[in-house]
Amino acid sequence: MHPAVTYIQERRDAFVEELKDFLRIPSVSTKPEHKGDVQRAVEWLANTMRAVDLENVQIMPTAGHPVVYADWLHAAGKPTALIYGHYDVQPPEPLELWISSPFDPTVRSGELFARGAVDDKGQVFMHLKALEAHLKTQGSLPVNVKLLIEGEEEIGSPSLDAFVREQKDLLKADVVVISDTAMIAKGVPGITVGLRGIVYFQIDVEGTKSDLHSGGFGGAVVNPAFALAQVLAQLKDKNGRITIPGFYDDVRRLSPEERRALARLPFSEKKLQKDIGAPVLFGEKGFTTLERLWARPTLEINGMVSGFIGEGAKTVLPARAMAKVSMRLVPDQDPAKIARAFTQYVKRLSPKTVRLKVTEISGRGRPWLAPTDHPAAQAMARAIQKGFGKRPVFTRTGGTIAVVPTLDRLLRVPILLMGIGLPDENAHAPNEKLDLDNLHHGMLSAVHLWNELAEERLK
Amino acid sequence: MHPAVTYIQERRDAFVEELKDFLRIPSVSTKPEHKGDVQRAVEWLANTMRAVDLENVQIMPTAGHPVVYADWLHAAGKPTALIYGHYDVQPPEPLELWISSPFDPTVRSGELFARGAVDDKGQVFMHLKALEAHLKTQGSLPVNVKLLIEGEEEIGSPSLDAFVREQKDLLKADVVVISDTAMIAKGVPGITVGLRGIVYFQIDVEGTKSDLHSGGFGGAVVNPAFALAQVLAQLKDKNGRITIPGFYDDVRRLSPEERRALARLPFSEKKLQKDIGAPVLFGEKGFTTLERLWARPTLEINGMVSGFIGEGAKTVLPARAMAKVSMRLVPDQDPAKIARAFTQYVKRLSPKTVRLKVTEISGRGRPWLAPTDHPAAQAMARAIQKGFGKRPVFTRTGGTIAVVPTLDRLLRVPILLMGIGLPDENAHAPNEKLDLDNLHHGMLSAVHLWNELAEERLK
Repeated sequence: MHPAVTYIQERRDAFVEELKDFLRIPSVSTKPEHKGDVQRAVEWLANTMRAVDLENVQIMPTAGHPVVYADWLHAAGKPTALIYGHYDVQPPEPLELWISSPFDPTVRSGELFARGAVDDKGQVFMHLKALEAHLKTQGSLPVNVKLLIEGEEEIGSPSLDAFVREQKDLLKADVVVISDTAMIAKGVPGITVGLRGIVYFQIDVEGTKSDLHSGGFGGAVVNPAFALAQVLAQLKDKNGRITIPGFYDDVRRLSPEERRALARLPFSEKKLQKDIGAPVLFGEKGFTTLERLWARPTLEINGMVSGFIGEGAKTVLPARAMAKVSMRLVPDQDPAKIARAFTQYVKRLSPKTVRLKVTEISGRGRPWLAPTDHPAAQAMARAIQKGFGKRPVFTRTGGTIAVVPTLDRLLRVPILLMGIGLPDENAHAPNEKLDLDNLHHGMLSAVHLWNELAEERLK
Repeated sequence: MHPAVTYIQERRDAFVEELKDFLRIPSVSTKPEHKGDVQRAVEWLANTMRAVDLENVQIMPTAGHPVVYADWLHAAGKPTALIYGHYDVQPPEPLELWISSPFDPTVRSGELFARGAVDDKGQVFMHLKALEAHLKTQGSLPVNVKLLIEGEEEIGSPSLDAFVREQKDLLKADVVVISDTAMIAKGVPGITVGLRGIVYFQIDVEGTKSDLHSGGFGGAVVNPAFALAQVLAQLKDKNGRITIPGFYDDVRRLSPEERRALARLPFSEKKLQKDIGAPVLFGEKGFTTLERLWARPTLEINGMVSGFIGEGAKTVLPARAMAKVSMRLVPDQDPAKIARAFTQYVKRLSPKTVRLKVTEISGRGRPWLAPTDHPAAQAMARAIQKGFGKRPVFTRTGGTIAVVPTLDRLLRVPILLMGIGLPDENAHAPNEKLDLDNLHHGMLSAVHLWNELAEERLK
């Protein structure tokens, strides 16, 4: 038994207590009133990095929340890995839906409940403890590592691009390791090799200059809520297919082999349907649920509002209506091209009776797909097999991690996504939690990862 | 010159100052925090009624805000008129759009700006001063009058039905006079003889038990906002015609003569379009704007909401979507029948991928249409001609005054609607105002009304 493995096995419960300290800090990045908490999380991280015997620990300012950096660079001739993670968390609201308080970490049936448990403090902690296990038992690491833990992931990483560009030399590495994703199901560890991209829009429709009385004017004036509903309803056809001209032109088709590989994954549509409480699953005709989620683009209404939305009845004919609409993109769709096509199409659908405006309101994210046969990916697969006792599967996710295409473009090295979350662990929702078995096996996998990567020639 | 007319002409400016006192009281019926203000308005009214020499002044409790009652019943053998009005006002929000403060009445260019100026304190005041003019100059009225001034009109008169039913004997009259409407244009006084009815619904659509991440789930789960948009978009066709089966079955058709009468009214579509700031007017194909507003039913979305509606972008796949939808009805549509047809149709349109619920959320209002050739209507027409120096036109309004069909049903006497508002006086909107020429001529018309009604045998 490797001494680092023993080190982790002996401290399994103590580590949970230590993680709770990190989780007690409400480092909500989107709320100015949590600025002090963000600072506390930064200091907790820096102190922990020092205690782990990492070196060159730095709290580095950005235009927003700081980045915490550390490294250990004494494995001469061995590859250098950059570990990315984030210490900020989503807002915990609505608070009344939490069984235990979001910042009072509580273990129930082998799961640790707290905001940030899985996204992403637990997974950052996993890497810190794996590094500690090597450093405390051997006094060294099998590879060189650099850690970049940011504080703005939950608000779209607005400062990260500039930071990575400016610190390109400091961050130079042979491989990037990120643990901020989920495995497909409990007992099925995996490596995420695909992410969808994103473009996000707001549609504003104006009918009149101010709200009108629906009795006095109803029937003679266009209703912007109705005009918006008509536009939105036309964005997909009955088969769930997006109707924007050219939308599917650049979508890379799944090969029969890829489809078979997806079909073999232990994914239960029934379980998904039950978990989310939907009457039935629905999506683009001709594709399975996993294909729809991972390899097909989608268009979703993220929000809409018009007129009176309070309790009871108000006889208003709204002056304005608004919708937020985003599209998740897959290789080889180009966010710029899709953004243009969407804007043109929505304007064309707009009735002439209203003024319609389309605004892009969030950063674009490119879709990303990594090869599964790279030596680094194979090293990670072996590490996970040793850590979880199971051969990992290669999966994708329907979500977007903006930092991945950014690092891909700026560093041009393989990026490995080893996530130990589960699909039902409520990242971004009340009762976020982390499976403690997965945390433990994830730590073991991370210990093995550095050994396995040391064997590969990645330079 | 009738001494009551002289009385009013000599006090034109003083009356405006007196009305300002009434308008300074923020008697917003919908907000519990204004309960004290409602009480102040009640007392102001009761005191003013006593000062006017009305008798039997009573503040009468209801389940909600009180009714203020008064009468003068010494015109033996003459008709009895019941004057209805309301002392409550709409909330003034949004405050930032008011040029002068809503409860600091201010005259600009012959218009009195304040919340309640036209709806309905100014018009209630008009009647009080006309009665005062008779009583102070003659010591008597030409007819018997009863006043019923309620405090819940702006919240749908929830207590009025029961009140009228319980006080049927007290309220017994030969004619009802209501001033709570608008004339078609400045310089065109009128009598309103038609109101639309109303049914009001909320549609709730549920897709999943809680909001989901649009990346993780988008494309594989139905989006309730999209399902709702699809349902709403199907409620009207391209020609603005409502698609609910049977919806138009009972709509009374306009005769060629009625259409010609409407076409002769001095109504400008251009002016309406300019006033409300719409790019173009739009409504049911085959009908003029006035026909659409007064004689055709309509279906409007009064509000809708789903998902994230704040600033910026949030990648949420909403669990729920909601819309408020109301229909204005015309003779001889039956609210109960329309309510059933709407509910069935919406349920039929609902995709099976969501749970959809239809709830009726406000009292039904029957459409109302009065004959124009009744002696009481002719008496009012003569009074307006004397007061404004112009022959009045008979108009309808697209709105609903719930009390009218109620009084019609319970009292079974003619109801006369003499409104001195203007269409652009912003009832229910910021910068509500009242044209002071109309207030003055309205008072004179009200003075003449009691003389003219005294000539008619309405018993």
